[in-house]
Amino acid sequence: MTTRTFLSPPMRDVHAHVTEWMTAAGMAVTVDHAGNIRGVSDGATAGGARLFVGSHLDTVPRAGAFDGVLGVMLGIALVESLGSRRLPFAIEVVGFSEEEGVRFGVPYIGSRALAGTLDRDILDHRDPHGCTVADAIRAYGLDPSRIPEAAAGDAIGYLEFHIEQGPVLESRGLPLGVVSRIAGQTRVMLTFTGTAGHAGTTPMHLRRDALAGAAEWIAAVERAASQVPDLVATVGRIETEPNATNVIAGRCVVSLDVRHRDNPSRVRAAAEAVTLARDIAARRGLTLHHEVRLDEPALAMDIALTALLERAVSDSGISASNVVSGAGHDAMVLGLRMPVAMLFLRSPGGLSHHPDEAVHDDDVAAALAAGLRFLDLLGAERS
Amino acid sequence: MTTRTFLSPPMRDVHAHVTEWMTAAGMAVTVDHAGNIRGVSDGATAGGARLFVGSHLDTVPRAGAFDGVLGVMLGIALVESLGSRRLPFAIEVVGFSEEEGVRFGVPYIGSRALAGTLDRDILDHRDPHGCTVADAIRAYGLDPSRIPEAAAGDAIGYLEFHIEQGPVLESRGLPLGVVSRIAGQTRVMLTFTGTAGHAGTTPMHLRRDALAGAAEWIAAVERAASQVPDLVATVGRIETEPNATNVIAGRCVVSLDVRHRDNPSRVRAAAEAVTLARDIAARRGLTLHHEVRLDEPALAMDIALTALLERAVSDSGISASNVVSGAGHDAMVLGLRMPVAMLFLRSPGGLSHHPDEAVHDDDVAAALAAGLRFLDLLGAERS
Repeated sequence: MTTRTFLSPPMRDVHAHVTEWMTAAGMAVTVDHAGNIRGVSDGATAGGARLFVGSHLDTVPRAGAFDGVLGVMLGIALVESLGSRRLPFAIEVVGFSEEEGVRFGVPYIGSRALAGTLDRDILDHRDPHGCTVADAIRAYGLDPSRIPEAAAGDAIGYLEFHIEQGPVLESRGLPLGVVSRIAGQTRVMLTFTGTAGHAGTTPMHLRRDALAGAAEWIAAVERAASQVPDLVATVGRIETEPNATNVIAGRCVVSLDVRHRDNPSRVRAAAEAVTLARDIAARRGLTLHHEVRLDEPALAMDIALTALLERAVSDSGISASNVVSGAGHDAMVLGLRMPVAMLFLRSPGGLSHHPDEAVHDDDVAAALAAGLRFLDLLGAERS
Repeated sequence: MTTRTFLSPPMRDVHAHVTEWMTAAGMAVTVDHAGNIRGVSDGATAGGARLFVGSHLDTVPRAGAFDGVLGVMLGIALVESLGSRRLPFAIEVVGFSEEEGVRFGVPYIGSRALAGTLDRDILDHRDPHGCTVADAIRAYGLDPSRIPEAAAGDAIGYLEFHIEQGPVLESRGLPLGVVSRIAGQTRVMLTFTGTAGHAGTTPMHLRRDALAGAAEWIAAVERAASQVPDLVATVGRIETEPNATNVIAGRCVVSLDVRHRDNPSRVRAAAEAVTLARDIAARRGLTLHHEVRLDEPALAMDIALTALLERAVSDSGISASNVVSGAGHDAMVLGLRMPVAMLFLRSPGGLSHHPDEAVHDDDVAAALAAGLRFLDLLGAERS
């Protein structure tokens, strides 16, 4: 069970390990000022266009062992497997510092820095202890003013390996899946504010109970989402004040995460959920504040790079099956800046964001073989 | 705004002030091994039967300035106002260490020690940081094995002043109210357990979302409580795991606080709420665990002592009005051990457990006058 958030002490430990492994594979290792760890292979055209390969090193709370970090390990394994072979491009393996959005409520801090799209306002976001993103960067010995230096130079593209985190590949009996698109995501923080009061002396009809209002809304959001095919809507986070047994809640903050493969369905569902919250709050004499924290459109993978990846999978004897990713990934952010392709590994039981998430050893070997074939094909194309 | 829980650093500060004021009023001050501060006046029969006067010094989180501590201050003010006058009994003013149940989820630790009814199992309860009650007592420089020494000796009775924490006295246009009974309380902690999972990849119909289940239950409890006259049911506390925006909640712990002036109504409502939780959990494939943390029957005040208090209020020119307390008080615990009487002071706006809770200066003066008259009447009766 792992909890490794943006530039927290466990991130320092994993950086030490990754540095060791990257160095052993012959890579030159640096940590950029957004906290991404980056290893460059001494490819024939080092200094020229690069293929980026990577994933994220941060985790959700109480996470398993594979979400994110497996993609970084596979990147290193690719370079290691190449040994003394030379390709007509260098490979840069990246372990992104932040993808899950746990510590600051804002995801993709690492990949946004690489894509050159990190809004400087994000540096002022605070974690629950009042520490800003900029503070965390400085505490790690890095310099937030130098984040622009993290932006990728000339890039051939970005390849990401990741566990599927869902049940589709297992149901198809396939070890690997080529991602065709990533569903869009909307994340909203909503605050219901009522009046704190004594649990024993305030009659039910005179209460303005922020938690009861939020609870009614959570149940309603779940019902509404269940009516729309392929829509998922999740309230995963709740904070109540004062959060005491014998005090009516005066304030309740809840998160909303809405995803759909099509943008209009997602945008409509998120707007309806906010309207629902506003109606419930008004009826109960509560005030509602909401803040959209993320509004990422669905992202189609690069057609050419993805075709190459499909061929690599087929060449290694596996039926190349397409999947839509319900989860967001760093590839979603980098896709606005460079061609991206993504390969999923089967998730046993579809389990994810859970200490028991797993991956089959054979599937990892198959992913590595497909990755090496992909490098061959890409090398041949660029020679 | 104050947050002062059992033997926390703010409690040490308030003990320093109370010691100073008790000493200035001529009292001998000690802190017993349950953390109660106790000042004994040098009454004529010191060593014989005592009248206890007090209330609690701990608070809910983000509390106002009067809940509890005002009763201790009025006790000290009574002794101070007596000056060199002698009564045929000593007065012991007690500032209880724990009444609200915030830190350990178990209330009345202080008054149970004085009543001699503190179950030793309570010493093993842990706060959210893993510190037990016994640890907290030792960290304060006290000795949990010596708690039995805190039990009251020969007692005439217990008098408590407290803000009403509700709107009744204000609606009657009265500064003071004599408490006739304290409503019973049931407190239950309920844990809904489902499966944590990825917010983007788990279809709505395959989820076992612990927070969604708890939310449905919170809304249902509120609806059910609103149907029963004079019943109040509150869910004030909620903790979700892993509590992340993009993870389906695997576990959700919620508190339930149920109160009614009549015992059967309260017991029935609490049982129905647990049944409701069990049904919701079963339908959603969640497991439910519940633990009853408190089950205090309604407590009638002592008839003789309360009659004396009513006369004291009338004698000071105020209509002696009876009120039922919806809030629990230390008097509820001590009432099983000695005669108890309780005087409420009007709460402006009925506000309580809120930073803006208040009390009128004139009402405090009226309470002090009624208290002194009560001491006269009690003294005359015992001469």
